[in-house]
Amino acid sequence: TRPIVRLQHTSKPVSAQVFKPLDTFPRRHIGPGAAEKEAMLKEVGVKDIDELLAKAIPAAIRSPKPLALAEGMPERDLLKRLKSIAEKNKVYRSYIGMGYTDTVVPNVILRNVLENPAWYTQYTPYQPEISQGRLESLLNFQTMVADMTGLPFANASLLDEGTAAAEAMLMCWQTGRRNKNTFVVDENCHPQTIACLKTRAESFKINVVVADVFNYNFTENKKNLSGVLLQYPNTRGTVHDYEALTATVHAAGGQVAVATDLMALAMLKSPGEFGADIALGNSQRFGVPLGFGGPHAAFFACKEDQKRRMPGRIIGVSKDAEGNPALRLALQTREQHIRREKATSNICTAQALLANMSAMYAVYHGPEGIKAIAERIHGMTGVLAQGIRDSGYAIENDGAFFDTLSVKVDSSAAIIQKALEKEINLRAINNNTVSITLDETVGQQDVVDLLQVFAKDSSSVNLEQVVANAAGATQSNVPVQLQRTSAYLQHPIFNSHRSETEMMRYIHHLQSKDLSLVHSMIPLGSCTMKLNATTEMVPVTWSEFSNIHPFAPSDQTEGYKIMLEELEKDLEEITGFDAASLQPNSGAQGEYAGLRAIGAYHAARGEGHRNVCLIPISAHGTNPASAAMAGMDVVIVKCDDDGKLDVKDLKAKVEKNKDKLAAIMITYPSTYGMFEPGVVEACDIVHKNGGQVYMDGANLNAQIGLTKPAEIGADVCHMNLHKTFCIPHGGGGPGMGPIACKSHLAPYLPGHPIVPTGGQNAIGPVSAAPYGSASILPISWSYIKLMGREGMTDATKAALLNANYMRSRLEGHYDILYTNDSGMCGHEFIVDIRPFVPKGIEAIDIAKRLQDYGFHSPTMSFPVTNTLMVEPTESESKVELDRFCDAMIAIRKEIEDVVSGKVPKDNNVLKNSPHSLEVMMSDKWDKPYPRELAAFPVPHLRANKFWPTVSRVDDAYGDRNLMCTCPSPEEYLE
Amino acid sequence: TRPIVRLQHTSKPVSAQVFKPLDTFPRRHIGPGAAEKEAMLKEVGVKDIDELLAKAIPAAIRSPKPLALAEGMPERDLLKRLKSIAEKNKVYRSYIGMGYTDTVVPNVILRNVLENPAWYTQYTPYQPEISQGRLESLLNFQTMVADMTGLPFANASLLDEGTAAAEAMLMCWQTGRRNKNTFVVDENCHPQTIACLKTRAESFKINVVVADVFNYNFTENKKNLSGVLLQYPNTRGTVHDYEALTATVHAAGGQVAVATDLMALAMLKSPGEFGADIALGNSQRFGVPLGFGGPHAAFFACKEDQKRRMPGRIIGVSKDAEGNPALRLALQTREQHIRREKATSNICTAQALLANMSAMYAVYHGPEGIKAIAERIHGMTGVLAQGIRDSGYAIENDGAFFDTLSVKVDSSAAIIQKALEKEINLRAINNNTVSITLDETVGQQDVVDLLQVFAKDSSSVNLEQVVANAAGATQSNVPVQLQRTSAYLQHPIFNSHRSETEMMRYIHHLQSKDLSLVHSMIPLGSCTMKLNATTEMVPVTWSEFSNIHPFAPSDQTEGYKIMLEELEKDLEEITGFDAASLQPNSGAQGEYAGLRAIGAYHAARGEGHRNVCLIPISAHGTNPASAAMAGMDVVIVKCDDDGKLDVKDLKAKVEKNKDKLAAIMITYPSTYGMFEPGVVEACDIVHKNGGQVYMDGANLNAQIGLTKPAEIGADVCHMNLHKTFCIPHGGGGPGMGPIACKSHLAPYLPGHPIVPTGGQNAIGPVSAAPYGSASILPISWSYIKLMGREGMTDATKAALLNANYMRSRLEGHYDILYTNDSGMCGHEFIVDIRPFVPKGIEAIDIAKRLQDYGFHSPTMSFPVTNTLMVEPTESESKVELDRFCDAMIAIRKEIEDVVSGKVPKDNNVLKNSPHSLEVMMSDKWDKPYPRELAAFPVPHLRANKFWPTVSRVDDAYGDRNLMCTCPSPEEYLE
Ligand SMILES: Cc1ncc(COP(=O)(O)O)c(C=O)c1O
Ligand SMILES: Cc1ncc(COP(=O)(O)O)c(C=O)c1O
Ligand SMILES: O=C([O-])O
Repeated sequence: TRPIVRLQHTSKPVSAQVFKPLDTFPRRHIGPGAAEKEAMLKEVGVKDIDELLAKAIPAAIRSPKPLALAEGMPERDLLKRLKSIAEKNKVYRSYIGMGYTDTVVPNVILRNVLENPAWYTQYTPYQPEISQGRLESLLNFQTMVADMTGLPFANASLLDEGTAAAEAMLMCWQTGRRNKNTFVVDENCHPQTIACLKTRAESFKINVVVADVFNYNFTENKKNLSGVLLQYPNTRGTVHDYEALTATVHAAGGQVAVATDLMALAMLKSPGEFGADIALGNSQRFGVPLGFGGPHAAFFACKEDQKRRMPGRIIGVSKDAEGNPALRLALQTREQHIRREKATSNICTAQALLANMSAMYAVYHGPEGIKAIAERIHGMTGVLAQGIRDSGYAIENDGAFFDTLSVKVDSSAAIIQKALEKEINLRAINNNTVSITLDETVGQQDVVDLLQVFAKDSSSVNLEQVVANAAGATQSNVPVQLQRTSAYLQHPIFNSHRSETEMMRYIHHLQSKDLSLVHSMIPLGSCTMKLNATTEMVPVTWSEFSNIHPFAPSDQTEGYKIMLEELEKDLEEITGFDAASLQPNSGAQGEYAGLRAIGAYHAARGEGHRNVCLIPISAHGTNPASAAMAGMDVVIVKCDDDGKLDVKDLKAKVEKNKDKLAAIMITYPSTYGMFEPGVVEACDIVHKNGGQVYMDGANLNAQIGLTKPAEIGADVCHMNLHKTFCIPHGGGGPGMGPIACKSHLAPYLPGHPIVPTGGQNAIGPVSAAPYGSASILPISWSYIKLMGREGMTDATKAALLNANYMRSRLEGHYDILYTNDSGMCGHEFIVDIRPFVPKGIEAIDIAKRLQDYGFHSPTMSFPVTNTLMVEPTESESKVELDRFCDAMIAIRKEIEDVVSGKVPKDNNVLKNSPHSLEVMMSDKWDKPYPRELAAFPVPHLRANKFWPTVSRVDDAYGDRNLMCTCPSPEEYLE
Repeated sequence: TRPIVRLQHTSKPVSAQVFKPLDTFPRRHIGPGAAEKEAMLKEVGVKDIDELLAKAIPAAIRSPKPLALAEGMPERDLLKRLKSIAEKNKVYRSYIGMGYTDTVVPNVILRNVLENPAWYTQYTPYQPEISQGRLESLLNFQTMVADMTGLPFANASLLDEGTAAAEAMLMCWQTGRRNKNTFVVDENCHPQTIACLKTRAESFKINVVVADVFNYNFTENKKNLSGVLLQYPNTRGTVHDYEALTATVHAAGGQVAVATDLMALAMLKSPGEFGADIALGNSQRFGVPLGFGGPHAAFFACKEDQKRRMPGRIIGVSKDAEGNPALRLALQTREQHIRREKATSNICTAQALLANMSAMYAVYHGPEGIKAIAERIHGMTGVLAQGIRDSGYAIENDGAFFDTLSVKVDSSAAIIQKALEKEINLRAINNNTVSITLDETVGQQDVVDLLQVFAKDSSSVNLEQVVANAAGATQSNVPVQLQRTSAYLQHPIFNSHRSETEMMRYIHHLQSKDLSLVHSMIPLGSCTMKLNATTEMVPVTWSEFSNIHPFAPSDQTEGYKIMLEELEKDLEEITGFDAASLQPNSGAQGEYAGLRAIGAYHAARGEGHRNVCLIPISAHGTNPASAAMAGMDVVIVKCDDDGKLDVKDLKAKVEKNKDKLAAIMITYPSTYGMFEPGVVEACDIVHKNGGQVYMDGANLNAQIGLTKPAEIGADVCHMNLHKTFCIPHGGGGPGMGPIACKSHLAPYLPGHPIVPTGGQNAIGPVSAAPYGSASILPISWSYIKLMGREGMTDATKAALLNANYMRSRLEGHYDILYTNDSGMCGHEFIVDIRPFVPKGIEAIDIAKRLQDYGFHSPTMSFPVTNTLMVEPTESESKVELDRFCDAMIAIRKEIEDVVSGKVPKDNNVLKNSPHSLEVMMSDKWDKPYPRELAAFPVPHLRANKFWPTVSRVDDAYGDRNLMCTCPSPEEYLE
């Protein structure tokens, strides 16, 4: 008898609820669950989250209605939807060139770096002892750039070639003591580079002269000449010998900057060798996908004597407390305190992850591999040239090219159409010139396809014959005097990792030295180190997003356009603004773009004289820097003793500058982590006096769903997508800093010379690519779609709860700087270390000691010296917050022992921290405390300990003895 | 004046060579470059590689001509080609069920486990001190299985549900003292399971009675009853109450094994609770892709009293030398020395990586998450049932289902056709019954689509109405008495990782404890731990390969078929055979399949009495085990003092067993790592006496391109694709063990009840899926295509060179067991530790001390006790080989200090190894040698040290106190 019986059943009634997907995302993104939240609210001393919000946020700025975003999508559905959007992009072969060429990304690098959270979730290596891995890789990048360009001093990446050229221009201008205002740019530089230069030049009143440099009379025009920018090979593909020209410019008192191509330099005499002062360019073709324009690492190298003017981050070799070599960010003091009012650069977040990929590409291929790739590209270009010649076309740069041919044709449009039929993109230089740029992905069939485009009769293409003709004719098209004879990439690091096994181990070896989000929370105030979810990251490496040229024809980028427009709309809703630009590829770029738009708005109303920018004393260094770069005079506004904007001072400054008032820059919540109640009034005052309000959106994570920049009173703000919107920090970039604004500023959003973007009266481009680092935008798009209406708001609430919970736990142990009248902080708070300074304990000692506990320090000494600013974000669970608080509390006891004189002032666990493995293992243990106290101050470390690989790094020594390329192995042994 | 000048050029002449792609693979796969090879040949004392080959390999077996494989493809082209093949698969929604259901793989697990070389390149955790991460995860797997099934003792995975059922049958048979030969199988078990059972039963002469268990008279037939297999829910979806039946079977002296579904058990009373003795099944739907049938982890659980009969690997909790809890493979001694002649199981490589994925899925979802998923699936099935009922169909298992409905229809074919039009696959149970199995990927639209398939008029489907009807009717379809009331997954490990951040950190925390190929070479003799290249791994997670049901209609799997056929062809060419089967999903399964084919061949010729299998004493334990399982009597053949097969003894044994001779099993090169010259003669002798030659292909890496199993004289061999053909070991699986054979054996290659495979007179299936673990076969396909003709052969040469180089470097320091007349080894060699044993140093001491040097030990005590067998593979570079040799030589000096009495015999760096971090950090250092000597015996360790996380693990203690589920946190603290 078969025991199937229909019975009374007990479970929940069936309803349509049953279809609700369960792979919902907010509960995966947000750390604490319901029970944890309950316990945390109790600790904070409020009965529920509403009470917390009421106490933390001024009622006046609370949004009247919930966010009008879609409901959150489950993870699986999201990927399906995004895939269907991505598939609307058409991946054609791109021979457009212009500084973006396809590349073969070694899969071992793709998987182990770009797709590996242990690399992409790292922060900027401000804590060198737990960052030696990426520091080494970035040093490799610098060494590679220095080698290839023939210039001794390189930085660890800039944002893109266009802004790197602008940095070069400004370096020349500074060399000329800021009073030689002519900068000559060869007309055959990439057009987007020229456009970026012009944008930047405007506010410095630099006169950019676009000219045929070979017909420009430098000697006659030497008076105001600060420098010249050349492109090598130039945008039409021609390889010029610039040696004589360089001498001429030098004789005329100018500097020579050369925008160049690392791959071409494998065959061409380097800029350094022909006398150039600066070399710059895009390292993208060294193993970084096209990605519709970014992210890629721009490079920048200069002569020795300019090194202290170098923009961006520089990795240097120093030594640690044991005297062993150790790497760190050199000249780091410039970083958070960029030249401010005198700044010519505001770069902060750069392109570390991509610089690492390019450096790894060089490590994997080595000098002979890079050379072979370059020669193959060049050889194929030679064959292509022969075939095109054989078809009866003239090649403009015949006999002097590397990988790019400019071909005279009857109709560019006709040829381009023919190419499109084969899913090939060419570039139209003008109506009767097209150019073709080859790259390492090209193979025989690709060349045949190209020859067919140019053949009178496509069936007549005979490659063998073409090759034979080519062999008979010119054998290389690099002029003899420009052939590279000098060596490069000779350091052992570029000559030891030829097998995939070695490469994989090298990547993992470096990785093992670096603390990232895969280990523990990184509670950096102002940096919002939240979860970078895998589902958000997956689309970044889809071919439909990564293999698109930024200047691909518009009908091939439909997928991108849908995604970008949706993201824009969502960001507008979140900020309350009417329009947005996705062009700025960092927060600092966003600031600059926003301030320029404000400037243009004033000018358009005939108020072009408005040039004063008010900035609170507490602002991030990029704010005054951006203002200065936008041609504004910075006027600092004080804060009162509670850390709030000093409204009296503000009023006074406004009054004083009334007629010239252009803008105020406000960070909200403030860089002190507070929702200042005075903000609405402040905005009002500025508006009433003809100024605009720029909001620095670095702290937007505390606002979403609860308040909006537009509602608070801002006219424009940027959003660090690498903070609030889940783009991982990548060890110091990539990031994205789009801006959103009210409709009156919309006409001035940045344009682009090639792909139409921005408003009707657009300012010039601020980035080389129309949508900045477009290929990482799917991350932010996905985040918003996954979280949805409620999820986005819940995240903000959790961020506030997490911060206030930690504040509450630490309050009895440390002074907390600046809480509001209800004793609440925003999404971050500042721990005051200044009381211990007289006793010899500084913020840095706690930062380093935290490494022994397995943590990355909070933000150190910003915005106030000798403080630590803690931002947990919503993604950290209560367990993790507690681990961190426990560490801080344990350290407080260690401080007490110093303060009370119980332990020696200069020889204690704090001062000697971090304790590296090597120190710990030494047979000579001469510290006045036990080993176990040094290594395992709390018990859970025995089961899970992250080790600093060097002991405390000596910054001053490194800055005094600046060394920014790989040291020889011998030096290491010394 | 524009300095473009056409000049004489100097570089190489242009030729068609210029098009040759540079992303060629062999130089990335093979460790040493040209210069290193040169130096290594010198060390070996030969002038070139040909001389080495001539000395290492008997001329008689050298292949007369090169491999007829295609030329190697560059990495990029390969992925393009494979993608175009993959796209020929059609990814339809599968409701076929039968033990394979779609699942939502959490992306955090996909990326950080399945796509992470630090997890997939791990070896089986034989060295527990550097494997605590995966040991913990596998213990989680066991705990999860024990919890869900309600049986206390679970193993760490089996190969698939079909073979797990066979293991259950054999466990019952053993419990019945091997003389109760009736095993009853319910007719509603999955058909492939029944077929696998029958295959296995045959050679044990077990009578598999397929019956309706509710109409079978157990009491009358109790005499020979060893047990019964039930399926719960059964293959038609019915949930039966088996409690009374279980009692009946028990009363009749039989055991009850239940094939079940972990997801269903979240809602159903567990087998343990209704009295079952064994539970087994496939854990695939816990977060492992369908993959066209595999790899997935089968699970197996039993009662306490059966635990020493448990097949496969078991993780247990023991303690380390410091008395701290530590995990390790329990009852490990069974592993390499499986019961041999008495074996009922030969499982060796299992499915560790997939077990880890499933365990992580449970960790991520926890009890409430798993329950919610199960309830949702069940709820949707209830709605679907209502709709189908509303359409006028009868549901066979109405009122008693979990996720599967069997629906009575007029014509199954017609309904299935209608479904196909919507890209939906259903299962035809018979001509007028179809079944539908839902899973967690199903959503509202999917249910609507299904309802449309069953609706008379598809536009009439009104989901709201259906839901309302469902709510009004039965609310759950699980009979009350079967509703689960007991808890599961209560351990904190399943209740602490709800956020992606926590999950990611847990995965990385475990990973950080485990040494894998990302750290250093793993020179395990017989295991061939070579590079598992990223390009080979990438396709594994392509949806076109991973989202296909194994029984999907043939026209949806065209892509798979192309790939599988090409792989078969390539494997045939490599082995010299005429036919192949891709079904066996491990080496041991291959052995079994091959021997069964031999048996069938003999039987077909009327020589069914031939049942003696000769096996050299040096053989791997799986050989005799497989022979026994294939119903053969094992006769051991001796080896002479040089390690060679003793031909005299062979002749004698052949002579003696002449009439009954079925086969010989030979490993070649032998398990001693030697190309024995006598092999051809041995094969000859066996053939002349009517026997067949089975070659164990574990060492095929030494043959490819130089010799072939078929040329040597074998009739059939298996290939461990997870050794020679680059499938990563995954920490103990997955693997694949396809077999190839001569044409006379081809008719007997294994068949399959659902998807036609194998020969015309096929033996039954040896695996549940027609092509075993099909979704990892792209790895081996890619490897062969990437390497090509020359690359494959070059790899073999490099493997021989690497081994002989190491042999040569170590020779002056250690005795090398067994080299040939020219002093050469094959691709591996054995270091003899026996001379030190009298002085107290054993192989294990060196194995553990090697951990201090950052290495995984070579294979320990196989094939000879107290030896270490070293196999470097071709993928290791000279630098790495030297690092390993330097470690061995340094250890030799440490041994000398013990041997000479310079240091205490029981308290020295060897005996105390490995030195865990905790030991090293202790303030109480009482060892008679310096800390630094313990931790950093060679200087490069200071820069790159891998730490054992526990000290030496006590195996005996663990086996005595067998504990195989997660210990409570309290126990950990004790
Ligand atoms: C308050 C504030 N503003 C601006 C920036 C600059 O943003 P980015 O680094 O993206 O250029 C930062 C960076 O940390 C910041 O904290
Ligand atoms: C010589 C030999 N034969 C057979 C096997 C069994 O192969 P598998 O583990 O794939 O079942 C092994 C595994 O190490 C082996 O070394
Ligand atoms: O300056 C920062 O990137 O935080």
